[in-house]
Amino acid sequence: MKLAVLGYGTVGSGVVQILEENRDIISVNAGEDLEIKYVLDLRDFPGDPIQKKIVHDYNVILNDSEVEMVVEVMGGVHPAYEFVKGAIENGKNAVTSNKELVAACGAELLELAHLKNVDFFFEASVGGGIPVIRPMIRCLTADRILKISGILNGTTNYMLTCMEEDGASYDDVLRQAQEMGFAERDPSADVEGWDACRKIAILSSLAGGQQVDYREIRTIGITGITQADFRYAAALGLRIRLLARASFAPDGIYVQVGPALVSSDDPLYAVKGVYNAVKITGDRLGDVMLYGQGAGKDATASAVVSDIIEAARTRRNPYKLKVRWDEKKLALSPIGEYPSRFLVRLRGRLDEVKDEIQKKLQPERFLVLDGLEDEFAVVTSAMSDDTLARILEGEPGRFISRMYLEEV
Amino acid sequence: MKLAVLGYGTVGSGVVQILEENRDIISVNAGEDLEIKYVLDLRDFPGDPIQKKIVHDYNVILNDSEVEMVVEVMGGVHPAYEFVKGAIENGKNAVTSNKELVAACGAELLELAHLKNVDFFFEASVGGGIPVIRPMIRCLTADRILKISGILNGTTNYMLTCMEEDGASYDDVLRQAQEMGFAERDPSADVEGWDACRKIAILSSLAGGQQVDYREIRTIGITGITQADFRYAAALGLRIRLLARASFAPDGIYVQVGPALVSSDDPLYAVKGVYNAVKITGDRLGDVMLYGQGAGKDATASAVVSDIIEAARTRRNPYKLKVRWDEKKLALSPIGEYPSRFLVRLRGRLDEVKDEIQKKLQPERFLVLDGLEDEFAVVTSAMSDDTLARILEGEPGRFISRMYLEEV
Repeated sequence: MKLAVLGYGTVGSGVVQILEENRDIISVNAGEDLEIKYVLDLRDFPGDPIQKKIVHDYNVILNDSEVEMVVEVMGGVHPAYEFVKGAIENGKNAVTSNKELVAACGAELLELAHLKNVDFFFEASVGGGIPVIRPMIRCLTADRILKISGILNGTTNYMLTCMEEDGASYDDVLRQAQEMGFAERDPSADVEGWDACRKIAILSSLAGGQQVDYREIRTIGITGITQADFRYAAALGLRIRLLARASFAPDGIYVQVGPALVSSDDPLYAVKGVYNAVKITGDRLGDVMLYGQGAGKDATASAVVSDIIEAARTRRNPYKLKVRWDEKKLALSPIGEYPSRFLVRLRGRLDEVKDEIQKKLQPERFLVLDGLEDEFAVVTSAMSDDTLARILEGEPGRFISRMYLEEV
Repeated sequence: MKLAVLGYGTVGSGVVQILEENRDIISVNAGEDLEIKYVLDLRDFPGDPIQKKIVHDYNVILNDSEVEMVVEVMGGVHPAYEFVKGAIENGKNAVTSNKELVAACGAELLELAHLKNVDFFFEASVGGGIPVIRPMIRCLTADRILKISGILNGTTNYMLTCMEEDGASYDDVLRQAQEMGFAERDPSADVEGWDACRKIAILSSLAGGQQVDYREIRTIGITGITQADFRYAAALGLRIRLLARASFAPDGIYVQVGPALVSSDDPLYAVKGVYNAVKITGDRLGDVMLYGQGAGKDATASAVVSDIIEAARTRRNPYKLKVRWDEKKLALSPIGEYPSRFLVRLRGRLDEVKDEIQKKLQPERFLVLDGLEDEFAVVTSAMSDDTLARILEGEPGRFISRMYLEEV
């Protein structure tokens, strides 16, 4: 089968490389040889063997009926959307690693692929190399999905791991991550949680069968995390993780991204550095966790190639699997009403206000740490974020920050 | 679609229950209603609603052309083999949770299913509810698999966790596991490693594409593990796990089951209690780990039902996936030649023999623990088991035990 790769950046060149270097295994697994006919890129690559396949005009690919699959690894919604849509409309299978595209247009493109009886696969869009999407939609099919909790961004997990283990500041760790290539020069998409937000939107759309609008997900990044937070966490035996979470509760569906405190009983506790993991809780299976490298050229490209292989294997199948992800919006419940226990940091000296705080918050625990004399922290009982905010309204100037405790 | 469940034991009744209680989700995911027409069991279940579906004669199922799928959850090779083979020969799809059957006859039954253009699925045979087999053969297809390391038996992992955390003896922990229903009255299959052996035989056959004969896998259980082993492990910051491991090295394929020392850098370190996990290392993906409940009625039944759903979804597909698992035997290399670092316990007083041991073994480390006065331990540099045995031959009566250190 002949295919075209759209974008010769990090992932695109990784895809080309794997298809070349693992050709023997891939041919066996796909049941046929896979041949890259074109690589679309704005740039030229003189001296690179890929140069002879480079095209600058997408129409060359679109109008070549020999090309049965396009592999979109450019990133961004436009023109990726137009390219993928055009390919599917022309009866070509499409594979993408592009989380922005899938979060925004996944439902529409899946529906179009269904109409055209081609495949639209996007395993690499969540969790990089970790098999997540296919296991979820092909294996966890007998269960009611109760919850998805994921560490879905490698950059922030690396930063949080370093801050915890080395005691370094946020700024130092960010600089180090940038130097090592784990963080972009503009790190906003990672550190503000936007990347994890797109990914949990995709997973919860697939679990719910309808569109979860990523713009409706309350997303808090890690930019406000300081060493003081790590000290309180350590005092509680907990770790700070940027969790992307979707809870399918009897009273509503709650989705959010934000820093959370994770206990050692939780398999997510052990997920360090650039590794990612997705924990899916089913009503029968209990917790299942999928763990691996959530980013990086080789791991992401491997997931893309596995999609290419799967699409090649099944392309003659006239009965394609219909993935349940309708364009109709899934109604999310207000995240402020979701109950959690919170670690709340408050200004002041505990001995002066303990009675008052005790009366108002009835916390499970008070924490005072050496060297943090002008503040203290409490662990609340389970309450909603809104309730917590209402209680703290009567304490102007006292609130520093709060972080929820993830329950196992 | 109509199906028959063979065996109304723990897993069988779990399958019936899930198909009933999650009927809504399952119908959507399967694309049609799934109806149990028969349940085969030697017993009757008067008063149980299942009674009206119970049959004692397998021919009733075999000769009913309305039954398009059999679900074998009886266990044991015979008559499971004859039943599954008969079903496939009669053009029925087959799903099983039976690791003995799959390890012994998987290649043959897959080939037969391929000839008959039906599916033969066995997700629940390894790792209980954890999606392992489908992710491996449908997702990890772009990589050369370098290694599989798994905690594949919940009973022994529970026992090792208790021995470590409670300091209890092997016998006490076994009794407790039996009382809690985590261990059989005859625990041999678990504690001797035979269960894990069948499972790594299945995984390594799928990874290698040829038959790994489970009888050729060196299998050591946990019956020889004592509190002294845990004390040495703790002194090294390591945990003892019963690992089933297949290494696809350039010089050969090495498969074994045995207790191993796992470091905190290894994601398997955090796998506690009845949980299982499989870590698969690919040449591109690096480490991927799949984690969850490796046994138990609900989790195992959920995996069986997910196979039923997958077979229902794809039964009209005339181009079934051919799973690579030939009957031809995969040649395993002698496990005694595989290099590892070892923790070796030796009789005697270290101060009396240190020079001699230093000269012979050149260990990385010596360990002497309080209260264990008549023995000591060493951590060797990387060497083969055979080399270690040859060195120790000159020390008759000194050797107590050895356990390998799993490298990350």
